[in-house]
Amino acid sequence: MPTVGMIEYEQAGAEVRAVYDDIMATRKVDWINNFWKVLAHHPPTLKRTWESVKEIMAPGALDVLTKEMIYLAISASNQCPYCIASHTAGARKAGMTDAMLGELMAVVGMANETNRLASGYQVEIDAAFKPKT
Amino acid sequence: MPTVGMIEYEQAGAEVRAVYDDIMATRKVDWINNFWKVLAHHPPTLKRTWESVKEIMAPGALDVLTKEMIYLAISASNQCPYCIASHTAGARKAGMTDAMLGELMAVVGMANETNRLASGYQVEIDAAFKPKT
Amino acid sequence: MPTVGMIEYEQAGAEVRAVYDDIMATRKVDWINNFWKVLAHHPPTLKRTWESVKEIMAPGALDVLTKEMIYLAISASNQCPYCIASHTAGARKAGMTDAMLGELMAVVGMANETNRLASGYQVEIDAAFKPKT
Amino acid sequence: MPTVGMIEYEQAGAEVRAVYDDIMATRKVDWINNFWKVLAHHPPTLKRTWESVKEIMAPGALDVLTKEMIYLAISASNQCPYCIASHTAGARKAGMTDAMLGELMAVVGMANETNRLASGYQVEIDAAFKPKT
Amino acid sequence: MPTVGMIEYEQAGAEVRAVYDDIMATRKVDWINNFWKVLAHHPPTLKRTWESVKEIMAPGALDVLTKEMIYLAISASNQCPYCIASHTAGARKAGMTDAMLGELMAVVGMANETNRLASGYQVEIDAAFKPKT
Amino acid sequence: MPTVGMIEYEQAGAEVRAVYDDIMATRKVDWINNFWKVLAHHPPTLKRTWESVKEIMAPGALDVLTKEMIYLAISASNQCPYCIASHTAGARKAGMTDAMLGELMAVVGMANETNRLASGYQVEIDAAFKPKT
Repeated sequence: MPTVGMIEYEQAGAEVRAVYDDIMATRKVDWINNFWKVLAHHPPTLKRTWESVKEIMAPGALDVLTKEMIYLAISASNQCPYCIASHTAGARKAGMTDAMLGELMAVVGMANETNRLASGYQVEIDAAFKPKT
Repeated sequence: MPTVGMIEYEQAGAEVRAVYDDIMATRKVDWINNFWKVLAHHPPTLKRTWESVKEIMAPGALDVLTKEMIYLAISASNQCPYCIASHTAGARKAGMTDAMLGELMAVVGMANETNRLASGYQVEIDAAFKPKT
Repeated sequence: MPTVGMIEYEQAGAEVRAVYDDIMATRKVDWINNFWKVLAHHPPTLKRTWESVKEIMAPGALDVLTKEMIYLAISASNQCPYCIASHTAGARKAGMTDAMLGELMAVVGMANETNRLASGYQVEIDAAFKPKT
Repeated sequence: MPTVGMIEYEQAGAEVRAVYDDIMATRKVDWINNFWKVLAHHPPTLKRTWESVKEIMAPGALDVLTKEMIYLAISASNQCPYCIASHTAGARKAGMTDAMLGELMAVVGMANETNRLASGYQVEIDAAFKPKT
Repeated sequence: MPTVGMIEYEQAGAEVRAVYDDIMATRKVDWINNFWKVLAHHPPTLKRTWESVKEIMAPGALDVLTKEMIYLAISASNQCPYCIASHTAGARKAGMTDAMLGELMAVVGMANETNRLASGYQVEIDAAFKPKT
Repeated sequence: MPTVGMIEYEQAGAEVRAVYDDIMATRKVDWINNFWKVLAHHPPTLKRTWESVKEIMAPGALDVLTKEMIYLAISASNQCPYCIASHTAGARKAGMTDAMLGELMAVVGMANETNRLASGYQVEIDAAFKPKT
């Protein structure tokens, strides 16, 4: 159970409804997931977070599938159960296959392993990896 | 300075040299970066880690660029300086442009933000996000 | 279910009871929450942890509400479900309103985002931010 | 050295300059710190991040000092060197004394300790800590 | 519910069954725990992960109990519920007593506390702690 | 440079000197490392932290070497540079060999990998891993 109540569309004020409408229109769905119903408790956070997510996750130099997979990878690495569930669904919707999920998780696991080996041994950065000015 | 000494090719025994040779051949480079020289301190870790990285990072259902970007995203999220430096270099070599890096970092930042909002409010997972059996 | 059994007041020895009594007296409550009942499994950890929490959370240069909000902020950032639940309750008891919770979570989310942007791009510390000697 | 170049005011285009001007006006300073000069590499991230930070860190239900201290607490917990340095400076500017810093760090340390004890023993959430519906 | 289906022995192909057989033989048990049944979804990850775990957790310079306790300590620190449950069981099987668990968790908690104090205050590394070349 | 000044023995008041004396006597050394000199800035934190560390790290059901290795493992996993350096030194002093360090780091890396695989796939805890009541 979330630590604050969830705001359903029917109870929501105009500001929250406008965000909900934009979420449904942008994602072409007819329901709002719990994350937004909880954020609606604090309307400025709902609005700002949605606008940021909408801007960041739009196709650009990276396509939607790549962005969703990076989002899922971070959520798996951070071990956020809600985010893993919602972004596994999001990435699958964007085209992620079982084989892609398997490889994605393998990279997440490996990166977490080598991150600790590099930091745990305090490996120094090679000159070749430093950007040229 | 790393907490153990680095093993240069000249000092290395046959087992370590074989790994170094395979790293250089696979990556088509003529030098070994510090990470491996430190791991060489414990040859079984060097061998196992390299073989895992080699298998995981080979092109498959995901291409090399996507894998390198996920690796970089995790390293940035975990704040591992060595890994950020080496995988920024690796992803650029695989074709990551400045615009792609900018979008990648935006997703990493956003995911870290929403992961804490979802967990901090203890949002419950929507039934729609649960896999069907 | 916790990985060790919980020690109820009735089963507890004198050392554990003394801590339980002090917790209830200090907090002006008539029950012990599960965290302490699990720690009671290892009495030195129960005693030391309670004495540290009691000392640290007492009003000082920072008031109790500010301390509880910082505790909640860290727990949300670390994604510890038990700690989020107990410190949301604790902070509310100390006076945290819904509006304050909303702003607290917004700061937690933002800090987690910018921490990764700063580290992910390996931004160097400005001379102006370094303490003077 | 950051993994992308920093954009100085003189080199910056109109969009970036507008953000820099707003940062300096809002904070009543005449210089831009490195974080923003690195983000300027990707103007949409610079603009969005600054606008979010500006909105979130403005006084509201929580005052500026409390917000800066929470930001510092998260940065210390996440171990982000740049963010610790910049937000220690920011919190001091907002009025944090040495005694307040000492207590803040004590809470951060303690929360990190008890978070692991609660999760490590898988303590179950007390019914009393669950929000009423 | 995991985000991918679990593969039971009966459904498994030859490659997966070979790994399952080796797990049961190595551990002298007659069942497979859920972790492997989920990884079996992506056979290369199942095989590589099992072979790595088998190699790393075999007795060597460190005995099995010490290795299991370190594994549990990391899992508690990372707050991974599945891993805490499975490695508490694993460490107990290897001989960990209640008193050892109590001390282990105390160290995990303390290390998490002092890690943040050291990083939060940006303490510089003493020359005496740097390895000699 | 730490964010607060360091307190040398000569400058220290009686309360801080008493802690410094106990650190040197307990550890049989004639110098104080930077961590304590920074904590001395806030004497209650210095005293409480030292007393906790002294109690927790004393030999008990686990010997000193095992405790130091767990402390190092957590510090490596958390990527705390100061703590890695000081506890690598501490563990070596307690008898950790190069081979033991190599195996310790391998376990740390592996646990970080499998923690993300278990959480990223949301593997459910097997009934067999749940404690009996």
